[in-house]
Amino acid sequence: MTYCVGMLLNKGLIFMSDTRTNAGVDNISTFKKMFTWSNPGERVITIMTAGNLATTQALVSVLDERTKAPKDRKPSILQAPSMFQVANIIGDTLREIIRDQKDEGQQASSTFNATIIIGGQIKGSEPRLFLVYPEGNFIEASKETPFFPIGETKYGKPIILRAYDPDMSFEQATKLLMVSFDSTIKANLSVDLPIDLQCYEANSFNVTHEKRIYKDDDYYLSISSGWGDALKAAFEELEDFKF
Amino acid sequence: MTYCVGMLLNKGLIFMSDTRTNAGVDNISTFKKMFTWSNPGERVITIMTAGNLATTQALVSVLDERTKAPKDRKPSILQAPSMFQVANIIGDTLREIIRDQKDEGQQASSTFNATIIIGGQIKGSEPRLFLVYPEGNFIEASKETPFFPIGETKYGKPIILRAYDPDMSFEQATKLLMVSFDSTIKANLSVDLPIDLQCYEANSFNVTHEKRIYKDDDYYLSISSGWGDALKAAFEELEDFKF
Repeated sequence: MTYCVGMLLNKGLIFMSDTRTNAGVDNISTFKKMFTWSNPGERVITIMTAGNLATTQALVSVLDERTKAPKDRKPSILQAPSMFQVANIIGDTLREIIRDQKDEGQQASSTFNATIIIGGQIKGSEPRLFLVYPEGNFIEASKETPFFPIGETKYGKPIILRAYDPDMSFEQATKLLMVSFDSTIKANLSVDLPIDLQCYEANSFNVTHEKRIYKDDDYYLSISSGWGDALKAAFEELEDFKF
Repeated sequence: MTYCVGMLLNKGLIFMSDTRTNAGVDNISTFKKMFTWSNPGERVITIMTAGNLATTQALVSVLDERTKAPKDRKPSILQAPSMFQVANIIGDTLREIIRDQKDEGQQASSTFNATIIIGGQIKGSEPRLFLVYPEGNFIEASKETPFFPIGETKYGKPIILRAYDPDMSFEQATKLLMVSFDSTIKANLSVDLPIDLQCYEANSFNVTHEKRIYKDDDYYLSISSGWGDALKAAFEELEDFKF
């Protein structure tokens, strides 16, 4: 599995993704799941991927090739006039890749599906965040649902539901996502460090912060143990049940 | 879906189950998922069920009928000499019911599977807790894995992993399970109140506490809002990330 979260803040966008891929439990590897294309000063587009690794790698390669061959019949995400069109291109490309893999060749027992989070900003409009389904259609984040998790989403959702605030700083939002990732990593073998972090400040049209966080990262370790202690203390403070 | 947790404590056993059943999101009902058979003073056996409702109701009815017709060819769980034999009987019965439904009649798109938690004590041995799979085989809780969740298990697991302590009182364990249930109910429509609670004190051979907790239960409401506030406060106390 995978765990990635994209989140819309008043300050901009924040992305976090793990790097574990697995085929069963005895075949695990580390692969990056966060990819960025940009025209500095004009647009930044970041995607995160969950699902079949061959599908997501093919998607990234196709998107990447098209940005380098601008005369391709198909438009590049670096030329698209809006984030909506970017999501359209990525959705169409994803659907084609899945369809091509299904039609021919060997049959695999697992599916070729993948789900994609897209976030970014193009000059002239606000930062936007999308979730693309394997069918190629997509939804956009809004004030009511300002974040999208993909992959192994359940363990880490309760804390985001409780602590998310659109006015958060990137520092606070990073803390929130680290707590959410730590809860997931503690409960599920198929999600693991290192994790990739990226922050995009609205109207900067450049990646603001980018960092890979490893197992021995001091801050991650302090969150991981500190959150356990804080949870226990918070739990102790609640009144016990009385029969 | 469903959410049920059975937990082994030094003091005995605690069980909590929700009551929501659903076929899609537009057909929801309330059904009890916790059932107890006892010979007061000699044995108490409690089961909780997740999965296809027709299967679990058939299982409960068959188990119940056999306790009332002691000369049945198949043994009753009230006659079995050990909790291991009780788990064997329930596993066999479950497998038969699933097999019978599969072999004949209409084909359903959903499966007839079910998963069962069994906990209890028979005079002469310790309290024991089992998890029975749809295939009829089962595993037993141990010191390393002292609790079994079934159904929609992921949202509520992180807090149990962090705060469980075998020395907990029933009052503290009830609080822990309520927090875990509240996290699940907040994140997933297919789990809902009322919830059933049962505590069994080791070597009492009688149900110690039994309670149904409704939506307007004062303690549940105080946990639900108090836990949100406590989580936020605990989260605030953690140091923010620094870029």
